[in-house]
Amino acid sequence: MTPATVQVRAGFWDTRREVNAHTSIPQGPGLLEAAGNLHNLRMAAGLAEGRFQGAYPFMDSDVYKWLEAASWQLARQAPGDAGPLAADVERIVSLVADAQQPDGYLNTWFQLLKGGERYQDLRWGHELYCAGHLIQAAVAHHRATGRTELLDVARKFADHIDSVFGPADSGKPIDGVDGHPEVETALVELYRETGERRYLDLAIYFVDRFGHGLLGHEAYCQDRVPLREATAVEGHAVRQLYLLAAAADLATETGDAELRAAGERLWAAMAATKTHVTGGLGAHHDEEDFGDPYELPNERAYCETCAAIASIQWSWRMALLTGEARYSDLVERTLYNGFLAGVSLDGERWLYVNPLQVRDGHTDPGGDQSARRTRWFRCACCPPNVMRLLASLEHYLASGDTGGLQIHQYVTGRYAGDLGGSPVAVSAETDYPWQGAIGLTVEETPAERPWTLSLRIPQWCREFRVRCADAVYDQNDTPVTDGWLRLQRVWAPGDRVVLELGVEPRLTAADPRVDAVRGCVAIEAGPLVYCLEGVDHPGGGLDDVVLDTALPLAVKHRPDLLGGITTVIAAGRRRSIPDEGWWPYRSAETTPAPPSGEPLELTAIPYYAWANRRNGSMRVWLPTS
Amino acid sequence: MTPATVQVRAGFWDTRREVNAHTSIPQGPGLLEAAGNLHNLRMAAGLAEGRFQGAYPFMDSDVYKWLEAASWQLARQAPGDAGPLAADVERIVSLVADAQQPDGYLNTWFQLLKGGERYQDLRWGHELYCAGHLIQAAVAHHRATGRTELLDVARKFADHIDSVFGPADSGKPIDGVDGHPEVETALVELYRETGERRYLDLAIYFVDRFGHGLLGHEAYCQDRVPLREATAVEGHAVRQLYLLAAAADLATETGDAELRAAGERLWAAMAATKTHVTGGLGAHHDEEDFGDPYELPNERAYCETCAAIASIQWSWRMALLTGEARYSDLVERTLYNGFLAGVSLDGERWLYVNPLQVRDGHTDPGGDQSARRTRWFRCACCPPNVMRLLASLEHYLASGDTGGLQIHQYVTGRYAGDLGGSPVAVSAETDYPWQGAIGLTVEETPAERPWTLSLRIPQWCREFRVRCADAVYDQNDTPVTDGWLRLQRVWAPGDRVVLELGVEPRLTAADPRVDAVRGCVAIEAGPLVYCLEGVDHPGGGLDDVVLDTALPLAVKHRPDLLGGITTVIAAGRRRSIPDEGWWPYRSAETTPAPPSGEPLELTAIPYYAWANRRNGSMRVWLPTS
Repeated sequence: MTPATVQVRAGFWDTRREVNAHTSIPQGPGLLEAAGNLHNLRMAAGLAEGRFQGAYPFMDSDVYKWLEAASWQLARQAPGDAGPLAADVERIVSLVADAQQPDGYLNTWFQLLKGGERYQDLRWGHELYCAGHLIQAAVAHHRATGRTELLDVARKFADHIDSVFGPADSGKPIDGVDGHPEVETALVELYRETGERRYLDLAIYFVDRFGHGLLGHEAYCQDRVPLREATAVEGHAVRQLYLLAAAADLATETGDAELRAAGERLWAAMAATKTHVTGGLGAHHDEEDFGDPYELPNERAYCETCAAIASIQWSWRMALLTGEARYSDLVERTLYNGFLAGVSLDGERWLYVNPLQVRDGHTDPGGDQSARRTRWFRCACCPPNVMRLLASLEHYLASGDTGGLQIHQYVTGRYAGDLGGSPVAVSAETDYPWQGAIGLTVEETPAERPWTLSLRIPQWCREFRVRCADAVYDQNDTPVTDGWLRLQRVWAPGDRVVLELGVEPRLTAADPRVDAVRGCVAIEAGPLVYCLEGVDHPGGGLDDVVLDTALPLAVKHRPDLLGGITTVIAAGRRRSIPDEGWWPYRSAETTPAPPSGEPLELTAIPYYAWANRRNGSMRVWLPTS
Repeated sequence: MTPATVQVRAGFWDTRREVNAHTSIPQGPGLLEAAGNLHNLRMAAGLAEGRFQGAYPFMDSDVYKWLEAASWQLARQAPGDAGPLAADVERIVSLVADAQQPDGYLNTWFQLLKGGERYQDLRWGHELYCAGHLIQAAVAHHRATGRTELLDVARKFADHIDSVFGPADSGKPIDGVDGHPEVETALVELYRETGERRYLDLAIYFVDRFGHGLLGHEAYCQDRVPLREATAVEGHAVRQLYLLAAAADLATETGDAELRAAGERLWAAMAATKTHVTGGLGAHHDEEDFGDPYELPNERAYCETCAAIASIQWSWRMALLTGEARYSDLVERTLYNGFLAGVSLDGERWLYVNPLQVRDGHTDPGGDQSARRTRWFRCACCPPNVMRLLASLEHYLASGDTGGLQIHQYVTGRYAGDLGGSPVAVSAETDYPWQGAIGLTVEETPAERPWTLSLRIPQWCREFRVRCADAVYDQNDTPVTDGWLRLQRVWAPGDRVVLELGVEPRLTAADPRVDAVRGCVAIEAGPLVYCLEGVDHPGGGLDDVVLDTALPLAVKHRPDLLGGITTVIAAGRRRSIPDEGWWPYRSAETTPAPPSGEPLELTAIPYYAWANRRNGSMRVWLPTS
């Protein structure tokens, strides 16, 4: 499968992308100016004096991620509509070019603070990581504008890297990898954009050199064990996921069956034992680490926004590589929950970590790891990463092959593929995820050649109905294989398919080995995970709330609330907790029977919309007794 | 109340102290040599050349804590028995004196690495923290040996600090505090040892300057809010607890009612909402922080060994200040569990963090925060802290006043007090905590003056019996007020009291707001918290084990196991977990009924003894369904 061409024209994601286009991305240059990232580039270019700004060797990467986001945005706009954004992009592209050293090297931290010493600290230096983001930006810029200024910079840097890094027997000076994978996927993209095979070979070399002790065998740096031998995702979540995305790219490009098998094995282990219900990944604040199997804490869930993005990137590549719908099931869950929570509804504030619970009486540390939305971070990796994913979201929604078109994610818009020379296109209208109905209309099709329109039936969906050419099927009489409903026929323009997915709210429980949520349920509806916020439950906190599972859930559409959401109403109680003295542990024999307490109507909102009103408590998992 | 004089002669704690005396403390100088702490002192003294060793500005404090431990040990030994230990102590005392600068300042990190610049980084510099440990060592050395070499060094440093630090209007150069409290309790001790009031005044000044923004209002450094206004313990656990210990000392010395009330308020909030069942404190690895109320994770419990020690020090001061038994209840719980787990049974290996769970499939990070016992740490604060507490344990066991003698902790040995000139003494024999019987014999008493022998009835104890002068009482007919059984009479030498505490194993549950252990129970017996270890349950891990609460617990004495323990045998099952595909979350409606699975005899061992055989899984809290 290859990505299909999708236009998002209205609906849920269009709204989020409009905020991204009109608020988040335009504010980028000002924020990068205030944080000093652009100042660093000007200093490196000899255009400014002063001190290096910022605390990290990857300050440049924030600029590159913003350039990538802005470029994808430009690609969606007619040239005349681009306005000041195009000018900002060209100005910053020019600055990046000026900061590059004659031999292609570019990293302001090392140029300005380390006397130009390079590649002395591969574990933490992030030089190739930054190069990777530069390359990604350059590919986006080239595709969006057709211009080559940034692509030239990126190629020059890539050529420089290729001249420095290689196997011990290659005669190149350094046999090494960067402690933070990222350049690997970028090099594959650069190969695809330029056709230059050397870039692919360099990516192959890098991916295979992790796990061999070049970085002290640290799991944090993905160096404990080679991917080909690994049995579980481990270490720093974003690093692991970027490396796995690159491995999937290589399996796609080279047919490497061992790398594909490693990806399938590691993805299955991750999904089954290390993924929060929101799709969030990373259990530990300490080292931003995955944690152990089934170690999925709530208030201390790390779930870095960048890890959600990296997970989407990897899972999407696995979906294209294997054709299996479960990868896009996880993409959907992550998009609507663990990823989207990372940006405020107004597009101006961010979460770096995405906990599943904030307690009554929470003492917020402030800073990057705050449970309160923040204008920008000291380590500002997440905001421009969100911007670039939202601006390029259409790349992750559908695929095509010679047999047809596969719709992975449902949006109002147009999906277009190519059956080996014959274009096909389908338009869609939907109020998903608030409503489960998706109306599809064939717009373009070869006249008499049958092809397959494949619709993903989400893993969470227990009931659906599909109407196609006057026939109606449901989950009982329609073959769904591996998550795909495959409609094969000779299509004509104007043919209609209506898919109705049951998005009624439901209660979800976890594998009993997930200790953190024993005796709890989560509320979900369609692809959305819900949560309670303290602000909706005045007169007390959330620590003493219990959900009554015997009473039905109800939905209430609230166009007035949080940009328009469907709330879920549940019955609950406030537990009365007897005062048992100074010690919170007591004889299990005197455990009170079913807790009594004041009845309470519980109002759940989608998790992605939390922390947009006022600071306070929140919880996804709700005790049932 | 003031501390009574106690001799520990046999039994549980005597065994642990013998290991401390014959293994842990004697190995100290070699370990401090290998880690470079002594080398740093030699360099500062001009006796060696080379590079500073170690990564922290508090390297010197490890030496001082060892000196304190060794001095307490010397105090317990007849001079002729001291052997090479006395020589080691004098050698290192002499080295410390040589490293001190002429004006009294001493910190090798700043002398060697910072060009002698002082007090430039009070937040992280640990200069006064190290001074505090030096002073504590000096007081111990003086009491143990009567010699003044180290006390002279400590006074000179304290006088120097007193010349530098003071209120803005005092004319002294710096109005400030150290980011890590510790010098404050030490200054009170120095005042008690020397009678020099300036040291007490300096401690009063320091304690009251926290919370006023001198360290940027950071909770980590105890600078967010003054103790007098605080409502919850917060920030770095050890820092908070050392500061509170100092506040209790000041309330004792000056009668400051507001500081006493703050201590009572904060202790109650800590005990009720932030204390693990083991007595362990500190929920976050990140910043070694207390965490939120009821945030008491299992596998990510931090529970630093030093925090357990600091908690014991604070609670003991509160017990002396208030006379209330609950403070010693927490001391007991912490001693037998959260503290003692920090050192291996052979006295050679240590835990810095003390989790309550290690999962099957745990990936251990190694290093200081490993769940595997380690020979020494990069940040080696805990091992010499354990050594000094074990070597001075007799200070924490009993108190006296003019009305009698209060026995807080039960050991085989001799408790001696003074009724304002009239000595009293009681000897005790017990196999506590394995058996609940404690036999007490009056050894010394005034002839016809009544006094009160007060026996703490532990908070965990539901049934007890006491025989005194041919009468027998139990929990139903004996008045126990505030945790104390008070026996007032005219005593004669040879009078016997036998207290029998019910130490049968029991199941314990937590306040429902402790989310991490919902649906779980812990096994306890007497003051001991128990745990399961994977090594005792071959053929599977612990992640799928369920305890059957309907069947009784049994005990099995195992003199052969782990130095001689009582195991608790419980009935359980291995849960059968259906394979539900790739995603670990499922409809709550299809939750399987009571889990079936293979019956299993569960063998629980005392928590303090875990991780002494082989590495593997462990858990304190056990699911019941």
